Amino acid sequence: MAQRLDARETSFPQAFADLLAAKREISEDVDQAVRSIIDDVIARGDEALIDYTRRFDALELTAESLRVSDAEIDAAEAQCQRDTLDALALAKDRIEVYHRAQRPQDSMTTDSVGVTLGWRWTALESVGLYVPGGLASYPSSVLMNAVPAKVAGVPRVTMVVPTPRGETNPLVLAAARLAGVDEIFRVGGAQAVAALAYGTASIRPVAKITGPGNAYVAAAKRRVFGQVGIDMIAGPSEVLVLADSSANPDWIAADLLAQAEHDPVAQSILVTDDAGLADAVEKAVERQLQTLPKAEIAGASWRDYGAIILVERLEDAIPLVDRLAPEHLEIETDNAEELAAKVRNAGSIFLGSHTPEAIGDYVGGPNHVLPTARSARFSSGLGVLDFMKRTSILKCDAKALRALGPAAIALGRSEGLEGHARSVAIRLNL
Amino acid sequence: MAQRLDARETSFPQAFADLLAAKREISEDVDQAVRSIIDDVIARGDEALIDYTRRFDALELTAESLRVSDAEIDAAEAQCQRDTLDALALAKDRIEVYHRAQRPQDSMTTDSVGVTLGWRWTALESVGLYVPGGLASYPSSVLMNAVPAKVAGVPRVTMVVPTPRGETNPLVLAAARLAGVDEIFRVGGAQAVAALAYGTASIRPVAKITGPGNAYVAAAKRRVFGQVGIDMIAGPSEVLVLADSSANPDWIAADLLAQAEHDPVAQSILVTDDAGLADAVEKAVERQLQTLPKAEIAGASWRDYGAIILVERLEDAIPLVDRLAPEHLEIETDNAEELAAKVRNAGSIFLGSHTPEAIGDYVGGPNHVLPTARSARFSSGLGVLDFMKRTSILKCDAKALRALGPAAIALGRSEGLEGHARSVAIRLNL
Repeated sequence: MAQRLDARETSFPQAFADLLAAKREISEDVDQAVRSIIDDVIARGDEALIDYTRRFDALELTAESLRVSDAEIDAAEAQCQRDTLDALALAKDRIEVYHRAQRPQDSMTTDSVGVTLGWRWTALESVGLYVPGGLASYPSSVLMNAVPAKVAGVPRVTMVVPTPRGETNPLVLAAARLAGVDEIFRVGGAQAVAALAYGTASIRPVAKITGPGNAYVAAAKRRVFGQVGIDMIAGPSEVLVLADSSANPDWIAADLLAQAEHDPVAQSILVTDDAGLADAVEKAVERQLQTLPKAEIAGASWRDYGAIILVERLEDAIPLVDRLAPEHLEIETDNAEELAAKVRNAGSIFLGSHTPEAIGDYVGGPNHVLPTARSARFSSGLGVLDFMKRTSILKCDAKALRALGPAAIALGRSEGLEGHARSVAIRLNL
Repeated sequence: MAQRLDARETSFPQAFADLLAAKREISEDVDQAVRSIIDDVIARGDEALIDYTRRFDALELTAESLRVSDAEIDAAEAQCQRDTLDALALAKDRIEVYHRAQRPQDSMTTDSVGVTLGWRWTALESVGLYVPGGLASYPSSVLMNAVPAKVAGVPRVTMVVPTPRGETNPLVLAAARLAGVDEIFRVGGAQAVAALAYGTASIRPVAKITGPGNAYVAAAKRRVFGQVGIDMIAGPSEVLVLADSSANPDWIAADLLAQAEHDPVAQSILVTDDAGLADAVEKAVERQLQTLPKAEIAGASWRDYGAIILVERLEDAIPLVDRLAPEHLEIETDNAEELAAKVRNAGSIFLGSHTPEAIGDYVGGPNHVLPTARSARFSSGLGVLDFMKRTSILKCDAKALRALGPAAIALGRSEGLEGHARSVAIRLNL
């Protein structure tokens, strides 16, 4: 049973602060191991990749078989069910349309002083996409990472995915082809991250690495950051459902459990102004848990991190939402749009009772890679901008330099940077 | 004397690879010290801040005097020279106009299936701006950090700046007021970063911390990342000048030295197709060094990290530029625009011989906080987007859910997430 908090009680501020502060990450200290794996891949390249894959994935590779062949992808596609492939194609199309609208505009103007200035966006030259092996190997995540990269115009998207004992998820390969991934290598772990960052004879280095992974992968990404770009390190997932008496308790319970089934440290929170709804949702959760295949995981998450918060009025929930900054916010109330407009911090908002978060996980169109663990206070979900960068452009003619030069000289001197001042003055014969 | 490379020689690929690989960072291992400072500020708040400020800045503070008062800012402004304040005001106006054009658009559409979707940008609720004390305390950097935050709409911008022995740079306070900084605290180092991240009785916590600092500040930013957002960790600065025979060697020499005077590990590179220009620039650098106040720093930078690269044709320089991914790229050639259009990786581009980089440092309008150390391959200069975040929005009505639901159910089941599938199915009576 999840914990209950009541915003009308005097103990609430402390209880809410404790909820905010609860650490859900299990931090394994794998940094030393990761460091030596990375150094080894830098030193020995493919040979090190092959050794680690033998050791960690029980798989014997050669430089030739590191890469997944087109024939293997053909065969994988043939293994997939038609309706799943169709669903994947629908998802890909909707994700692509949504992300196309995110492509940024260049800007170039000449101002009244005669300065031409603006910026230009360009795609990254290459991106590495890490896809976990085994159970956490989600074809939907392949789409969510690769489609925005391709929409951005990245010419080379390289995917790595471990295949323990040679086992591959055929849907992952099908999703990669559908999304336009250019090359796939069957390696994983810190060694795959090192290969993407530094390159080997078989794997060319990339400019940025994205995608989720275990503690080794996360530590490796942190360590190669700077050599290459990385996306955010994903933490455990969370949902906050804001609901009033108009909501269906069975539907809300299903949404809370959909979140909870991801991970024992996932977090599902209901905030409501209706004590009756709170009770009904709690009962529905217990009932639905009895037939859920992942009841053990979902039950642990709900028991350890789940919460139901009662508020006097729905408006009172807004500052709580902003402090929690949930990855997913469902608003199932009569005035959902109105409440949503008042929220500052959320990774994504799902409006109304017919928008379960699972729609957004797969086929809605928006990205499902979203800021977790309160980081929606300062960051955004994955998007096209993560695969592009902006170069600023400035051009003065002689007249414009005469207009701006004296101010630059004054500021350079005020900062003790005479060389800066001289680089302007020399052009103005000052 | 800088090193000379010639792209027509067989030894060039290795020599260029060595140039790329040269480490210019001095990495001090301060992580243990920083960790205990942060823990102490979390535990003891203002008291810890006051203790560290006594120890590191030789300054006795109280909870009341932590904050810089309005009267002190008035007095600082009165100390500044009129023409420097005017130059600062010109810079602020131009930076503001440039960054206003970066404000992103929200998007909201209803598609043919009946799904309403899009996104909304919101400003971060609060930002902490770190400003170094002493010599590296640049008023221009205050503008470059605070103006985009205010243009983004951040309601609370908090600045911290150490004032060793009580010494303040009056222009820094004047720049802060001009840029709309909301509050200023006279603390620095890892302790100031900890206060911004976790809050004390006097300093409210912020959502993100930006701004340059020494090794302690950089280590503290890395450590509090996750609790708050941070900007990129700045490395030593660099310029690459691409020039042909039309360029003025004295002007180019001045630009190379303006970069070099920042730091002994700054890097200035000239790439040209004209051996005569290369010789003339080299002589001009030596001559100008003789009267440069920061000759010792600039000379060391030029000697240790400077480079002149000869190419057969200017077009041959483009792949070299893209691999170096310079923070600043000056193109002083006849066909500057044409060459610029071919460059993928650069933090900023300065076109033509009347656009010395120093104009961009102060009054051009674009931001001078730019990706260093080859990170322009995957990241952009500071801008309005760094002070905002995007929330995705999705709304299905019953009809839209019926259209998309079956695909979501199929994908949920294919990933072994029955709870996801059920949260959709329960709404469709499936």
